[in-house]
Amino acid sequence: MKFNSELDDIVTYEGGKPIELVVREFGIKEEDVIKLASNENPNGTSLNVIEAIKEHASKVSIYPDDSMYRLKDSLAERFRVESENIIIGAGSDQVIEFAIRAKANKNLKILTAGITFAMYEIYAKQIGVEVVKTNSITHNLDEFLTIYKNNRDEIGIIFLCLPNNPLGESIPTREVYKFISEIDSDTLVVVDGAYQEYAIFKDKKYEVVPSDLIDRFHNVLYLGTFSKAYGLGGMRVGYGIGQKSIIDVLYKLRPPFNITTLSIEAALTALEDEKFVEDSLRLNFNQMKRYEEIADKNQIDYINSYTNFITLIFNEKYSSKEIADILLREGIIVRDLTSYGLNAIRVTIGQPRQNDRFLESFEKILLG
Amino acid sequence: MKFNSELDDIVTYEGGKPIELVVREFGIKEEDVIKLASNENPNGTSLNVIEAIKEHASKVSIYPDDSMYRLKDSLAERFRVESENIIIGAGSDQVIEFAIRAKANKNLKILTAGITFAMYEIYAKQIGVEVVKTNSITHNLDEFLTIYKNNRDEIGIIFLCLPNNPLGESIPTREVYKFISEIDSDTLVVVDGAYQEYAIFKDKKYEVVPSDLIDRFHNVLYLGTFSKAYGLGGMRVGYGIGQKSIIDVLYKLRPPFNITTLSIEAALTALEDEKFVEDSLRLNFNQMKRYEEIADKNQIDYINSYTNFITLIFNEKYSSKEIADILLREGIIVRDLTSYGLNAIRVTIGQPRQNDRFLESFEKILLG
Repeated sequence: MKFNSELDDIVTYEGGKPIELVVREFGIKEEDVIKLASNENPNGTSLNVIEAIKEHASKVSIYPDDSMYRLKDSLAERFRVESENIIIGAGSDQVIEFAIRAKANKNLKILTAGITFAMYEIYAKQIGVEVVKTNSITHNLDEFLTIYKNNRDEIGIIFLCLPNNPLGESIPTREVYKFISEIDSDTLVVVDGAYQEYAIFKDKKYEVVPSDLIDRFHNVLYLGTFSKAYGLGGMRVGYGIGQKSIIDVLYKLRPPFNITTLSIEAALTALEDEKFVEDSLRLNFNQMKRYEEIADKNQIDYINSYTNFITLIFNEKYSSKEIADILLREGIIVRDLTSYGLNAIRVTIGQPRQNDRFLESFEKILLG
Repeated sequence: MKFNSELDDIVTYEGGKPIELVVREFGIKEEDVIKLASNENPNGTSLNVIEAIKEHASKVSIYPDDSMYRLKDSLAERFRVESENIIIGAGSDQVIEFAIRAKANKNLKILTAGITFAMYEIYAKQIGVEVVKTNSITHNLDEFLTIYKNNRDEIGIIFLCLPNNPLGESIPTREVYKFISEIDSDTLVVVDGAYQEYAIFKDKKYEVVPSDLIDRFHNVLYLGTFSKAYGLGGMRVGYGIGQKSIIDVLYKLRPPFNITTLSIEAALTALEDEKFVEDSLRLNFNQMKRYEEIADKNQIDYINSYTNFITLIFNEKYSSKEIADILLREGIIVRDLTSYGLNAIRVTIGQPRQNDRFLESFEKILLG
């Protein structure tokens, strides 16, 4: 059967290997596998969330309240915007998809950093949208601006992933604002803040305040997620914040009941437990120092990270693929970035004991 | 901001009103509201499912196993197909979306019954795909075939919703097979079996066996869901079954992690509790008789239903909108079909006590 030709050369997203797969493939006991590959919260999630899920477990036969008014109201209050400025997605991923399908097309490309979140490109390719990338792998706003100015009429969406996944860098908010102010009002700028909680904890100068952002720039869509700092990667809840005129159009692409009944309850409860998030952030950056020290000691390059992971970049002496493979056989799952064209691995900062194991194995591998 | 023009005149899907909304709008106590509007399972879900959710509640921080191999293996075993013949969707809805985006386009329309599941049209319109409908509101395969033969090159997908939502009719499988055998191998035929469990229980002659179907016809995609007989409407799990060549293409449109960690566990557990499903089906058709009797007694037309709902059609003496409004004020939510161009209401068959309340109120309304 013939299908639409846009699909011919689509790259499929490669998620972090799940623990089950390693158990199956290498016969390692489940409790001995540590997964530092998907930037999940190593603290799990708030105990209140787990209680809420148990409490609402018997409601799974009922479709979710598709208006999602309680969750939107809670987010609106948290971010000091109106409920009409918010759209809920099955992960912020889904809001990325809405944005691309609503604004980009065969004549309107998207512009991204050289290496950034893979789903921008995947969703674009699904509908035959071209992707323009900066030569710089990290976000270089000067280069973004030059490309934009030279191709103004051909670019529909600019994606800024701040902080950037899978590299970890971010950009001070002042510079971001300055950049956006140079962009035409008919170009959509998506500020993907999936890791913003981490950036804010590390350095307030990197904080993007959604209410402020969308007040100043009516062509901006801010994205947030419950998958990282809130520890709800398995529940698929994210959100977009923007002017009503943008949100209303994205709504036209939203499938009804796009998150589960339990996801709504989980997100609502997670939003109320600030202590859980703070503890997670503190642990993350305390533990990250250990990674930086080991890297420094062994002269391994890394990118200063504003996230819950660190990207270690190797010189020709090492192969990231080999390192990731050796670690995998020991039951330690990290993300090899070879498919991004980089001799590097991305490691999620884990619990102290997980980090112990990674760092010990890693140093051994480096020493050959 | 300008957006893609396909979105200009999109109809948004109108789900059944959630209980919370009625509580808010009419000040009725939550325990006094009965929702017979979304074809949820009035028995809830299997108690084993609720236990499984509680047991796995602490895993919500972990992304789902994106290979979903356990769920695919279970479904493959159940339906006697291979795992590679299966794709999992966030509800079968999502598989509908994949199919339309993969196969239909501005030159390849979709063909559906006059009144059928609203999402076919909504997903089509999102990408500017035209919808051709039979004049007959229920499935009339002769009319389908005539239209198809006259527009063979313009039709990319034929949707058969068997049994049909929101009307409830179905078609004997022999006739369905005969129809499909007349369709070109490059036209995709989607057999949406969301309510198949109910049809099979009522009359084996209406049973569509996916393995048989896809063996005979390599251009068919079968859809099933956990939202109805399995009582998992809130968890968003459905599936498509087809030849590998079709499934592989749909996979290119599947967002990673498209169902939640708990949805996988819930579906796996639900699949094992056949008694729950059987009890639900038995209750459904026992209770449906009561609806038919009241309708007969009051000379209200209805469509012979192979589902868990009944569609009551009114003559000019009554207005379905008014009837639905009066019921709503009493805390009874049903689906008015005015927006489908029908003076009718669709009522989910509920628990005996819910049906008591509906039938009593309904008769009172009929008697004015």
